[in-house]
Amino acid sequence: MANPVVVEVTRGSRVESAHRGAGAVVDATGKLVFAFGDIERPVFPRSAVKAFQALPLVESGAADRLGLTDAEIALCCASHSGEPEHVAAAAALLAKAGRDESALECGAHWPLGEEAARALARSGASPSALHNNCSGKHAGFVCLACARGVDPKGYVEPDHPVQREVKAALEAMTGVTLGEESRGIDGCSIPTYAIPLSALALGFARLGTGEGLAPERRRAAQRIRAAVAANPTMVAGAGRFDTEAMTIAGARAFTKTGAEGVFCAALPAVGLGVAVKADDGAKRAAETMIASLIDRFGGLSTQERARLSRFVSPRLTNWRGIEVGFVRPSGPLSLT
Amino acid sequence: MANPVVVEVTRGSRVESAHRGAGAVVDATGKLVFAFGDIERPVFPRSAVKAFQALPLVESGAADRLGLTDAEIALCCASHSGEPEHVAAAAALLAKAGRDESALECGAHWPLGEEAARALARSGASPSALHNNCSGKHAGFVCLACARGVDPKGYVEPDHPVQREVKAALEAMTGVTLGEESRGIDGCSIPTYAIPLSALALGFARLGTGEGLAPERRRAAQRIRAAVAANPTMVAGAGRFDTEAMTIAGARAFTKTGAEGVFCAALPAVGLGVAVKADDGAKRAAETMIASLIDRFGGLSTQERARLSRFVSPRLTNWRGIEVGFVRPSGPLSLT
Repeated sequence: MANPVVVEVTRGSRVESAHRGAGAVVDATGKLVFAFGDIERPVFPRSAVKAFQALPLVESGAADRLGLTDAEIALCCASHSGEPEHVAAAAALLAKAGRDESALECGAHWPLGEEAARALARSGASPSALHNNCSGKHAGFVCLACARGVDPKGYVEPDHPVQREVKAALEAMTGVTLGEESRGIDGCSIPTYAIPLSALALGFARLGTGEGLAPERRRAAQRIRAAVAANPTMVAGAGRFDTEAMTIAGARAFTKTGAEGVFCAALPAVGLGVAVKADDGAKRAAETMIASLIDRFGGLSTQERARLSRFVSPRLTNWRGIEVGFVRPSGPLSLT
Repeated sequence: MANPVVVEVTRGSRVESAHRGAGAVVDATGKLVFAFGDIERPVFPRSAVKAFQALPLVESGAADRLGLTDAEIALCCASHSGEPEHVAAAAALLAKAGRDESALECGAHWPLGEEAARALARSGASPSALHNNCSGKHAGFVCLACARGVDPKGYVEPDHPVQREVKAALEAMTGVTLGEESRGIDGCSIPTYAIPLSALALGFARLGTGEGLAPERRRAAQRIRAAVAANPTMVAGAGRFDTEAMTIAGARAFTKTGAEGVFCAALPAVGLGVAVKADDGAKRAAETMIASLIDRFGGLSTQERARLSRFVSPRLTNWRGIEVGFVRPSGPLSLT
């Protein structure tokens, strides 16, 4: 059965495009609070689980031994815009591991942030692996390997000790055993494992509350949440959803985007985890879905909800600034 | 009822995302040759109908009176990448009307072409309305107004003589009466009118064959097709679908992308018109749909079909060039 239409894009008085999707809101015991669409089909969470992937670095004590700052830990959970502060923090992480950008195996791309990309072009430079939106996560993998005395070379491979630890953390957080049949290769070359939305939401409820986690992991989850809440610009960049939403909600929402229309969030204040995916992979649909669920379940104040509203139902303007339509939640996410 | 899944995006052994859509292939009498999904729901064709919008300029004789070249006429039908040759041709069009870029009412944006955008940033300049992907179409509107002795000011407004002529051409080509209730505002500020895919496909069959058109319009359609076929780089830009597909197919396919997942094509050699829309507005889905229909109905040679295959089922690689998946036609467009 088709997942429901959950986001509509209007132009004038008409719906121009529509997005279908699925989503789950669960508590830390796995109890379903709200759901729509097929939440048991495994989906690749892509970058949405970077916080889970950063757990080994922190809980192993490697982050403390290398003296990582909160901003640097936040960058390990980031899909950053390639702004100067992101690039500098990625370089600093590698330096603390005694390495440099040549250790990165994520590949290079122009900064995700349009302003950052133009500034780089204006400077006459070309992008390096430090500009890759995943460079912080990768630098964190290099830190983990070096702190453990393991050669970081090949750290993106499924059988490298780093990826084995990362996979174990993913399995423990979500309660799902991840076999080879569930594995794909992510944009930054590390494995990505298909996991049902219900299990991803459970993992985020645990990340947010610490419930059901061993003491070291609970402390690591808390450190990561606090690091990100204190440094929302490190996790994404100027004007981007994660940065703006966490600037509004503070420590009461930990949100993380993933490619192909995935979004996850922990809502620690209310003990919930959230995971959504747009069937078609659209970022705008995923953002509207997660914003609408944070609006509904996040326990935000009226003022905070008012500030979040531009993400729940963004106004669309054209090149001259004329309003042409809206993106709006629909069906099970309808505002009425 | 939901439109069928027509395009799948795979990662590893799994379908990561899927796109639903509708499409119609018709001949110049309106006879349906092939269809999937709801082809009677009106959709905004956006930039896909730029060739129809250019008909008044050519059939009125204005293009000849102002001495427009084939390359300039092709630019009037373009969603161009903002490369230097596009910008120069837009400026040349305006000069032939005795105007300059201050006459353009499309707004400015950074070039669609990533290389062109970076080169502009590198030069220290900012984008002007000439870089807007619609600047050729708008310059054509200015030419039409000036050649008719009408003040071009306000040429984007529905009641301006230029837009009234353009709307009449759209109505005649598609056979649909376009009321106010079908009107939205396009990204470049001109009206866009919602039209069923079946009628858009009929319009393109007529554009391609000239059947059912008055002699002047038939000649204008032929001139536009020939101008575009001779200048495929003017219509889009380096590496983009329209430019590549028409370089492969020559005069046997006239293709045109529109925002929000629309694509239209005329296949003059086989007397057919094609129109598709991805429900969710995805460009990648629209491209795979139209490529797959040209592959199937376009009467291309085996060699040409082999060259087109990278658009029918594009291989997806990550930042390090590793193959991670495919985009592929599915359901009614399945290759088997």
